[in-house]
Amino acid sequence: MPTPLKRTVFFISDGTGLTAEALGHSLLTQFEHVEFKQIRIPFLDSVEHAQGAVARINAQGEADGMRPIVFTTLVNQALAAIVHQADAFCLSYFETFLAPLEAELGIKSSHTVGRSHGTADSSDYKNRIEAINYTLAHDDGITDRDLAQADVILVAVSRCGKTPTSLYLAMQFGLKAANFPLIPEDFDRGRLPGTLEKHRSKLFGLTIQPDRLHQIREERRADSKYASLANCRYEVAEAEKMMRREGIRWLDSSTKSIEEISTTILQELKLR
Amino acid sequence: MPTPLKRTVFFISDGTGLTAEALGHSLLTQFEHVEFKQIRIPFLDSVEHAQGAVARINAQGEADGMRPIVFTTLVNQALAAIVHQADAFCLSYFETFLAPLEAELGIKSSHTVGRSHGTADSSDYKNRIEAINYTLAHDDGITDRDLAQADVILVAVSRCGKTPTSLYLAMQFGLKAANFPLIPEDFDRGRLPGTLEKHRSKLFGLTIQPDRLHQIREERRADSKYASLANCRYEVAEAEKMMRREGIRWLDSSTKSIEEISTTILQELKLR
Repeated sequence: MPTPLKRTVFFISDGTGLTAEALGHSLLTQFEHVEFKQIRIPFLDSVEHAQGAVARINAQGEADGMRPIVFTTLVNQALAAIVHQADAFCLSYFETFLAPLEAELGIKSSHTVGRSHGTADSSDYKNRIEAINYTLAHDDGITDRDLAQADVILVAVSRCGKTPTSLYLAMQFGLKAANFPLIPEDFDRGRLPGTLEKHRSKLFGLTIQPDRLHQIREERRADSKYASLANCRYEVAEAEKMMRREGIRWLDSSTKSIEEISTTILQELKLR
Repeated sequence: MPTPLKRTVFFISDGTGLTAEALGHSLLTQFEHVEFKQIRIPFLDSVEHAQGAVARINAQGEADGMRPIVFTTLVNQALAAIVHQADAFCLSYFETFLAPLEAELGIKSSHTVGRSHGTADSSDYKNRIEAINYTLAHDDGITDRDLAQADVILVAVSRCGKTPTSLYLAMQFGLKAANFPLIPEDFDRGRLPGTLEKHRSKLFGLTIQPDRLHQIREERRADSKYASLANCRYEVAEAEKMMRREGIRWLDSSTKSIEEISTTILQELKLR
């Protein structure tokens, strides 16, 4: 019998389902030749809702001719028991790991719903929202006010990924991330913008391969001097020269995601 | 023997460690009386690095007088085997779930590192970055150009959480999320801003409890008319009246995180 290459996957949670999806996604990406149809059922909070999910899973299995795969992060054990009656291959995150963790810690878990992505932990959450507001107000060198409050200040030539990285640092880690463009005037002067001098320990640089930068800038301003390969080569070389001279740590963002860049910055600057 | 209330937790991954941390965090939040010191070790990619991690875990265990808890998402089995030699309580996602999933699918997994948060899946990643740029360019009604491209348009009075929610929708789900403020002029006119009329099916409203709004606005502009409880009550009542009249779906963001708001919007608008 040939291996079926299409499967339906459900992510079921009494919260947002983001954790169930992160778990499932990290596993499913290990099977690159299978096409997964992914369905998220969040906020499952009642017996009726659980029974509805079972009906939906079973109907999908009949339509597919193949039982669905179900990832659950259901804290409520009664609802989990209902969902697990579905004719499906169920991987249950809490059932698998909570009991051994309880044994290790020597205490019972609280079985509380929605603690991961709720506002329960409100000082953490408030920090994240404040960090997002700070980062938006300090994007692309808009202002040099309150830089003393920044956790990190990204510097790079235009279109290296400063803005999305700053926002990710704020949103995911609650870090106040300012960012400043390095521009030809800085290179002509041969030194850092004065306003950044006194925050040197917070600086982190991004660089990029010139041909990749050329490609990105062409999408934005085709056939401009700004986007030309020669200019991209010049700006990148000057920015790297400046960062090397000033002792600024940096990384090449060409093939990295904002998650990878952000994680590296956290490590390098020993933040958190 | 009393239950120890402090434990050190390591999140170890050959990628960013974000999945390991999300999963671990969802379990740890179930033990609210334990104080967890959390250490992330990302990009573990060599035997030396793995041995270094083991040494660090063991040293921490000796310092704590209690073995650490280790969550791993190590795809590389040789490195996982080294880490699991540490004197620690190890929970391994891939070892726990990959084998049963391989059996269910009838194929072997590819054991590829960094597929979750790498740029491997580059069209998805490019969509996310484009969505972030779109969302920044369409924040707070900056422009009504290209609204036809929006996946969702959030409407709300000032300080209901439009901006962070829009950014989360873009960053997490790759959705182009514009947002428009509802302002007293709109209430006086008694109808939606004209530019939004033709995108009615994409509109989603946020509302908030007036006293919560008052509190948030006070932090921004203390003792202003804008922040006064009377004005907050007026604006919220008018906005809800308008959304009800225009048939715009909405939710109350007062006690919800941006993750919860975004997940609800996805469900309601049947996005993705």
